[in-house]
Amino acid sequence: MSDARQIDAPPNLTWQLDAVGRARREAIAGHRGAVVWLTGLSGAGKSTIARGVDAILAERGARSFVLDSENVRHGLSRDLGFSLDDRVEHIRRVTEVAKLFADAATILFVAAISPYRWMRRRARDVIGHDFLEIHVATPLEVCEAQDPRGLYRRARSGEIADFTGVSAPYEEPVDAELVLHPENESVEESVAKVIDFLDSFNILRPPLA
Amino acid sequence: MSDARQIDAPPNLTWQLDAVGRARREAIAGHRGAVVWLTGLSGAGKSTIARGVDAILAERGARSFVLDSENVRHGLSRDLGFSLDDRVEHIRRVTEVAKLFADAATILFVAAISPYRWMRRRARDVIGHDFLEIHVATPLEVCEAQDPRGLYRRARSGEIADFTGVSAPYEEPVDAELVLHPENESVEESVAKVIDFLDSFNILRPPLA
Repeated sequence: MSDARQIDAPPNLTWQLDAVGRARREAIAGHRGAVVWLTGLSGAGKSTIARGVDAILAERGARSFVLDSENVRHGLSRDLGFSLDDRVEHIRRVTEVAKLFADAATILFVAAISPYRWMRRRARDVIGHDFLEIHVATPLEVCEAQDPRGLYRRARSGEIADFTGVSAPYEEPVDAELVLHPENESVEESVAKVIDFLDSFNILRPPLA
Repeated sequence: MSDARQIDAPPNLTWQLDAVGRARREAIAGHRGAVVWLTGLSGAGKSTIARGVDAILAERGARSFVLDSENVRHGLSRDLGFSLDDRVEHIRRVTEVAKLFADAATILFVAAISPYRWMRRRARDVIGHDFLEIHVATPLEVCEAQDPRGLYRRARSGEIADFTGVSAPYEEPVDAELVLHPENESVEESVAKVIDFLDSFNILRPPLA
């Protein structure tokens, strides 16, 4: 394990080109690849809406999938905790995986609280023009009143520290491509709005040849 | 950043179910999801063969993609070096990402030297029955004679340390599902063997309902 190898390592890495190519993959899939990033408070409905849209797109034959931040913590991010550094690294990994799915011409939904603007800005910078941000803007009082998993109760009692919206900040998006208000509509209505939104961004059709 | 949160964190994580389900995704895709793991020396032809198979499957409309170990080092693993610990973590991340693609009903090809048996065994254990191992068994002397990137020359001169096959071991698979000998055949022949192989494992058709 010499230092020479550590120094020499990066130049040995050669980028292997995708033989099929992104545009061809999208033409075959019949739609574009994209990363649809749903941000919002715990219990806002991010995952529920993402799964509803995914189910509709999947049944239409689209290549779609949901990357749930919490599920990733059971696998790829299982070595990470909840310190700020670890949260940043977790979101970085989610971002890189999402980008790979978009390269594979998949419409990839990320459901992640991702509470800081700079955190989501990094994801947008890495993913580029494939990144679409949806703010699932259910108000704190609604999320807290429902609290199906009892997390807000535990956060208020101090049993859980640094809980977004209670003892840690949530920075609302200022540049989200879509804002949803699940507190005023059914899940089906929110899902339909996301489908219309994707259509308006030309995601649901192949790229122009 | 209290200890209480670190301790409490895991129980807050709830696994979010895939609303569509793996079997339904595969039925819609018309084929199974799988991780096809190509192992072998540097320059053995892993990536070339993987990309050849991917191109054929993609043109057939299959959901396939290549995860090239070296490309992942430009993104998801950009924070990792080449110490043994970092190599293990890199392969762990590749494994977890590959598993996600298989869950999305993608035929995912991993091209990775992955020189140790225990390293590939871990990948097989995590991915389970979706894991298919292909040994791209081009002999060292052939890889070294071709050496298009000059890596073997630099490894022999000591400029690159711990280079697999030269100054670091490569443990040949004992339980690979397929062994290829690219030194005795064309790329097209190797690619055709992988297609036949996938067919024989029923990967290229939807699961029985």
